[in-house]
Amino acid sequence: MNEAVPGAGSALDPTWLSASAASRLIASGQLSSLELVRACLDQISSREATVRAFAHVDADGALREAARRDAMPAVGPLHGVPVAVKDVIEVAGMPCGMGSPIYDHFVPFADAACVAALRAAGAVIIGKTVTAEFAGVTPGPTTNPLAPDRTPGGSSSGSAAALASGMVPIALGTQTGGSILRPASFCGVFGFKPSFGTISRAGLKLAAEGLDTIGVLAREIVDVALSFSVLVGRKPVDLAARSSPPRLLLYQGHHWSRATADTVAAVQVTADRFRASGAQIDELPTPPGIEQLSEARAVINAYERARSLAWEWQHHAGQISPRMSQVLAQGSALSFNKYLEAMSVAAHWRAWFANVMQAYDGVLTASANGEAPRGLGSTGDAAFQEIWTIFQLPSISLPLCTGQSGLPVGVQLVGHARADEALLNLAAWAVEKASSRPRSPASR
Amino acid sequence: MNEAVPGAGSALDPTWLSASAASRLIASGQLSSLELVRACLDQISSREATVRAFAHVDADGALREAARRDAMPAVGPLHGVPVAVKDVIEVAGMPCGMGSPIYDHFVPFADAACVAALRAAGAVIIGKTVTAEFAGVTPGPTTNPLAPDRTPGGSSSGSAAALASGMVPIALGTQTGGSILRPASFCGVFGFKPSFGTISRAGLKLAAEGLDTIGVLAREIVDVALSFSVLVGRKPVDLAARSSPPRLLLYQGHHWSRATADTVAAVQVTADRFRASGAQIDELPTPPGIEQLSEARAVINAYERARSLAWEWQHHAGQISPRMSQVLAQGSALSFNKYLEAMSVAAHWRAWFANVMQAYDGVLTASANGEAPRGLGSTGDAAFQEIWTIFQLPSISLPLCTGQSGLPVGVQLVGHARADEALLNLAAWAVEKASSRPRSPASR
Repeated sequence: MNEAVPGAGSALDPTWLSASAASRLIASGQLSSLELVRACLDQISSREATVRAFAHVDADGALREAARRDAMPAVGPLHGVPVAVKDVIEVAGMPCGMGSPIYDHFVPFADAACVAALRAAGAVIIGKTVTAEFAGVTPGPTTNPLAPDRTPGGSSSGSAAALASGMVPIALGTQTGGSILRPASFCGVFGFKPSFGTISRAGLKLAAEGLDTIGVLAREIVDVALSFSVLVGRKPVDLAARSSPPRLLLYQGHHWSRATADTVAAVQVTADRFRASGAQIDELPTPPGIEQLSEARAVINAYERARSLAWEWQHHAGQISPRMSQVLAQGSALSFNKYLEAMSVAAHWRAWFANVMQAYDGVLTASANGEAPRGLGSTGDAAFQEIWTIFQLPSISLPLCTGQSGLPVGVQLVGHARADEALLNLAAWAVEKASSRPRSPASR
Repeated sequence: MNEAVPGAGSALDPTWLSASAASRLIASGQLSSLELVRACLDQISSREATVRAFAHVDADGALREAARRDAMPAVGPLHGVPVAVKDVIEVAGMPCGMGSPIYDHFVPFADAACVAALRAAGAVIIGKTVTAEFAGVTPGPTTNPLAPDRTPGGSSSGSAAALASGMVPIALGTQTGGSILRPASFCGVFGFKPSFGTISRAGLKLAAEGLDTIGVLAREIVDVALSFSVLVGRKPVDLAARSSPPRLLLYQGHHWSRATADTVAAVQVTADRFRASGAQIDELPTPPGIEQLSEARAVINAYERARSLAWEWQHHAGQISPRMSQVLAQGSALSFNKYLEAMSVAAHWRAWFANVMQAYDGVLTASANGEAPRGLGSTGDAAFQEIWTIFQLPSISLPLCTGQSGLPVGVQLVGHARADEALLNLAAWAVEKASSRPRSPASR
């Protein structure tokens, strides 16, 4: 197991700086926003032909905004820092393609709430990152920056790939099944899905309303914490708050037979490292019957997506991919009662898990299955992410391990509902204890 | 107590037809959609100068769509029936003003999910009804059709007023505090807020995401049931399903000292009528401490609104009303922890109530306080609606009573979470047993 983010540069290269470090350097006058944005744009220019992370790069707008930021005192902890936004989230005046040709000419009127929050903290929106079609499973053109013949994961494909290729330090993503955690795992970055309902979805194109969760991807845990505190408008998360080793559940779940050797090893090695640092880790056996959650999630997903995309389905069916069309057809045919039953199943298992987890600080489990699969036709398997989405629990993928090809294999930590800060504290402890990554002085 | 909807006409006047009756007449060739839409447009022409229910009337579009509907076989149970849409819900190509000058020139790209569902059932979207600013408390120009010097209630002001003045048979509304039930009560129509999360909010301008609920207003319970089944895509609700009298809780709550004599009488008389029809009604005393729910709701509302409207607040503060500005300033200053505490308070009392209600079919309580207050400067008091919104329970205002000035005073029935059909059955029973309204043969 070795470093999960190849290419991390020296302290002198602003391209690979963490947002936290960059904003400190900008605030102290050692770096200008313009320099940083130019470095990011240069990196996009040099890597984009291969990586194809962006649906739209607003180079002129970002440079103008950087100059404006440089001419004023810092307004917040992201002052002058470039951020990329998944292309299902609206940015005023910037094309918003939703990963669908239906939206080729759509330009939103207003910023989404999460974008407005980033701007209020001084962020510079550099562009829109490629999303799978309507945050679903039909991939866009993005490749994995660490292995261009492999998927970056999805649906937040461009956000993860932009981070892993040094194009931006922070990007917004969304998760409905596994759309933040999976690309984070495949690209070797952090991917954080907060508790359901935490970050306002005003200005998000809804996919499945009962599941959609806005979150952040970043290369450093400090940047995850920083952007989360900006997004919810709270005081900075104190990442050093966890002083004692945690008590964790190790969970494999009903899809574990699919787990690759890399994933089995990643979870095992991480558990061993945690134990060596004093953590108590108890295995939670997969309860009989929980496999019905996968079916319930599929029903909720299809039913809600068919409602969210009803207009597109009515008026532009010919421009919807076969895979999405199948989901919409299934969802349109589902009865309301079947949907209500699925919601009940979800509520039942959510309550079961909340009870099981009471005596623990969190869960250690797989992020995604193995290294990024070869090929760009699929964004991979959501089997190890979906349960935590339907449980509405905060979860984070940590880029702690690598697989047999030297590519990243993330591990996932899950926290208690609405206890996002505690999960970030746990994640910081985990990175401290279990990381084999060299730490760049510039990123701290 | 007498008829709550003045002006209900004869069976020969298509203007006042229920949607259910109209669609049957259209399907059988006894009425054309064009005739019905023309009658509605005529009614708008004759009443709009006083009522001001509409932010935008799409007369040409509606007539074209009616002609198109007339030229095809019925596609669904609203075929050819005009519907009005609250102006915070997006309709493709139709201005969407949000009750705010900021959105004066905003034209949405797509239909909201709920609008697409109505269209899929054959509905003709006739226009956008006036909303209080961003579905909040700052009124638009709408007057109460039954007393033009009085508020129609809000924030779904135009939807309720359009129904009560015979302009349309069905209108969409939204409730964040009391924005469906209150105008329904003040205008003498039915107002139904389904369980939280039931009708997709894709294409709704979010006000407070944890509270916003899309619902329907109509003049007849059959139309409420019809439009609900269309909106969730389910088989028709069987309104005759309740065969035995219900067991109900009578609840007054911590704001009852404010209740006017009309409201006290309306709830009492309705309870007496229900009892006379065999219902068992037990009073639920107001539990000590529940008044903290009002504060919690205010915190959640302000915190979430400040996020939803962050872009407007950053870029167009000068065009936001003083009252909304105050809410946004409060919400922006609230800490994330304060918000989480408020969410916990809400969850605590929600669980308490779900437990208390287990042995009952529903709750009987006040809809809004008394008759519509005089003056157009306020949409009235949300005190009797807010608790059911934060409890996420389905609730409906029934236009069963009138007050001392002969104006409507609604009563509210509340059902179990996700049991919307059972609540509609209960409402149909209640209308049957407790209504003093004459029934038009055309409306059944």
